[in-house]
Amino acid sequence: MIQMINVAVMGFGTVGSGVVELIHANGERIARGAGDTVRVKYVLDVRDFDNSPYADLFVKDFAVIENDPEVSIVVETIGGVGVAQEFTRRALSAGKSVVTSNKELVSEHGCELLKIAAEKGVCYLFEASVGGGVPILHPISACLAGDEIEEIYGILNGTTNYILTNMFKNGATFDKALAEAQELGYAERDPSADINGIDTCRKTCILADLAFGKNIAPDFVRTEGIAAVSAIDVEHVSTAGASIKLIGRTVRMADGKIAAYTAPHVLMSDNLLVNVEGVFNGIVVRGEATGETMFYGKGAGKLPTATAVISDIIETGKTIGTGAFLGWSEAGEEIIGDTELLENRWYIRANIDFDEAAVRFGQVTMLGCDENGAAFITGAMSGIRCAELLEGIDATTVYRVLE
Amino acid sequence: MIQMINVAVMGFGTVGSGVVELIHANGERIARGAGDTVRVKYVLDVRDFDNSPYADLFVKDFAVIENDPEVSIVVETIGGVGVAQEFTRRALSAGKSVVTSNKELVSEHGCELLKIAAEKGVCYLFEASVGGGVPILHPISACLAGDEIEEIYGILNGTTNYILTNMFKNGATFDKALAEAQELGYAERDPSADINGIDTCRKTCILADLAFGKNIAPDFVRTEGIAAVSAIDVEHVSTAGASIKLIGRTVRMADGKIAAYTAPHVLMSDNLLVNVEGVFNGIVVRGEATGETMFYGKGAGKLPTATAVISDIIETGKTIGTGAFLGWSEAGEEIIGDTELLENRWYIRANIDFDEAAVRFGQVTMLGCDENGAAFITGAMSGIRCAELLEGIDATTVYRVLE
Repeated sequence: MIQMINVAVMGFGTVGSGVVELIHANGERIARGAGDTVRVKYVLDVRDFDNSPYADLFVKDFAVIENDPEVSIVVETIGGVGVAQEFTRRALSAGKSVVTSNKELVSEHGCELLKIAAEKGVCYLFEASVGGGVPILHPISACLAGDEIEEIYGILNGTTNYILTNMFKNGATFDKALAEAQELGYAERDPSADINGIDTCRKTCILADLAFGKNIAPDFVRTEGIAAVSAIDVEHVSTAGASIKLIGRTVRMADGKIAAYTAPHVLMSDNLLVNVEGVFNGIVVRGEATGETMFYGKGAGKLPTATAVISDIIETGKTIGTGAFLGWSEAGEEIIGDTELLENRWYIRANIDFDEAAVRFGQVTMLGCDENGAAFITGAMSGIRCAELLEGIDATTVYRVLE
Repeated sequence: MIQMINVAVMGFGTVGSGVVELIHANGERIARGAGDTVRVKYVLDVRDFDNSPYADLFVKDFAVIENDPEVSIVVETIGGVGVAQEFTRRALSAGKSVVTSNKELVSEHGCELLKIAAEKGVCYLFEASVGGGVPILHPISACLAGDEIEEIYGILNGTTNYILTNMFKNGATFDKALAEAQELGYAERDPSADINGIDTCRKTCILADLAFGKNIAPDFVRTEGIAAVSAIDVEHVSTAGASIKLIGRTVRMADGKIAAYTAPHVLMSDNLLVNVEGVFNGIVVRGEATGETMFYGKGAGKLPTATAVISDIIETGKTIGTGAFLGWSEAGEEIIGDTELLENRWYIRANIDFDEAAVRFGQVTMLGCDENGAAFITGAMSGIRCAELLEGIDATTVYRVLE
């Protein structure tokens, strides 16, 4: 089995350059894990990097990688679903394993790409696509494989969590918190995929795919972002010692269907994720046998994400030849569970007074009121029941509460 | 590669019976992870279990397992270093992989047993020996393999954490909290290995072995338990919004040596582990590239621990033939770092008044005083410096502070 593992890195951006650097810096440790020396043979990028210490590794033509039988693993950090999808397909078809941080591609086309990988007897792995440096996909698919997973929820996007933390800690408005995040490089110039919950939605789909073995397409996942989180809600929720977090959540329902959605939630002070602040991510996995397990760490950033890519390079070497391939079955809307059946308490701000809230909802916890109405937390009920009780009321904010 | 994976489970106690049950209950999911059906062929126990649904699997003679070429994996949940060590040696020598939850055996003789495993081209794996159902050893050895680990610390023992939580939440004395833990089955009749920190010490050694690649023998690890934690300290520490936790900790020092120790610590309110309560475990890994990652969950219990055993059964199938074996090099006291060089703030309760504390230690945070002296938190300094400043003083309590 002794032969060097030759890797080609596609895309020399933040994550790709981190992968190249870590392989050079921590070669010995990586070789110990992989059972063999790992070498970067090519870096593919359309741009020129003449002053890079790795300048002689650069190629511009994917065919060089595709046609080199020495390359057994391709790292895809190009992003998006354009050439990334094409190159991934071609690399897998050429019998090379592909490791990626590309959550858009995995959530949209993972099912198809994993099928090609299985047919070719190679791997398509994407630990870095969820949770950045936090090991989460491997624990779900391997470490917790003896268990039946019932639910996963998490703070999966560092940008929105940074903004919400800033709003809660410093009383910043959403617009000011977003501007600050952009200044610090925590939010992109066009932050819409983060702010609107799309990034969290994609990661939620990947978690659901792996945990439940069925393809959950992002199109079927109700997604609500944080742009509407207001200073008034922050104030009311703070009085309860609680916080607002953007949560991606997936639950195996009693009817066998899979519920998955992304939305702001009110997290009460005992919730495991309430203290996950700033750009950090936290993910809770609830299994039948293991109960709740929580994973926490840096959800993004060059070196944390590169570390996750390298763990997959090691995993690739161990998986090939065992017949143990990742994958999930194709599925359509018929397996999507109705999120409105999920029961929980609700945070509501609406144009009613204390008395009417109590009449409609029974026992409620009042958080405050002003000329526009009251903010309160209800007892546990389904989304359907909650909507019934809200009929005829102008509710500004309706968030699920996680205890 | 399609052939059934035959497993023998040695010891039908809490964990062993959990493994047998989970393999039967979640066979399909496990087969997906392992790439092959996993079957329990034998259960070894000196006791009779005639009414067990698995009665016809029982054998009393280890040689039956040893000599059956169909058995490729042996699960050792016997515990201790007696027959467990002998059977593990013989199973490995017979070319079978061994998976265990036995932290005593791994921390004392892991280095030797891993060497036999590597020689025979099989695995010796022990995810269940640390953190129960929390995936931690695999993340350290594989998922974080691209990183250089700098420090690991954690709440590794559920029994002592249950007792300390009870003392903080309900004002119970140590004796009362211990008695309650025994009543609830969270502490054994002879709780000394938990209370005295020995269990935490063993787990700390295993974490250090894996993270740093050198054998850290339990004999060289300074170990302090929780029997001396007093109601007075609980009161003082509570006023600071802090908590006392039994922590196992290992640090790679600037001189390349490895510091490792077990002791009660004061955890300030921002520490990641301060809210790890009751029988739960929490472990923080600090890596050069990934920063701090935290793992949290049930550190003990039948099914959580059995889930960890099963993850190793799956891992075994993936590792054999890759040349990627776990292991660390033998080492003696010469690689043990001096824990007293580690700098941190200190919680001190001593027979001095406020003024003398301030004169001796400079800036201190006062937590309270009574007729026996004062309780305060110092600035950051090494253990050596702290001992110098305490000279001539009768200090009742001296705990490191983790921020």
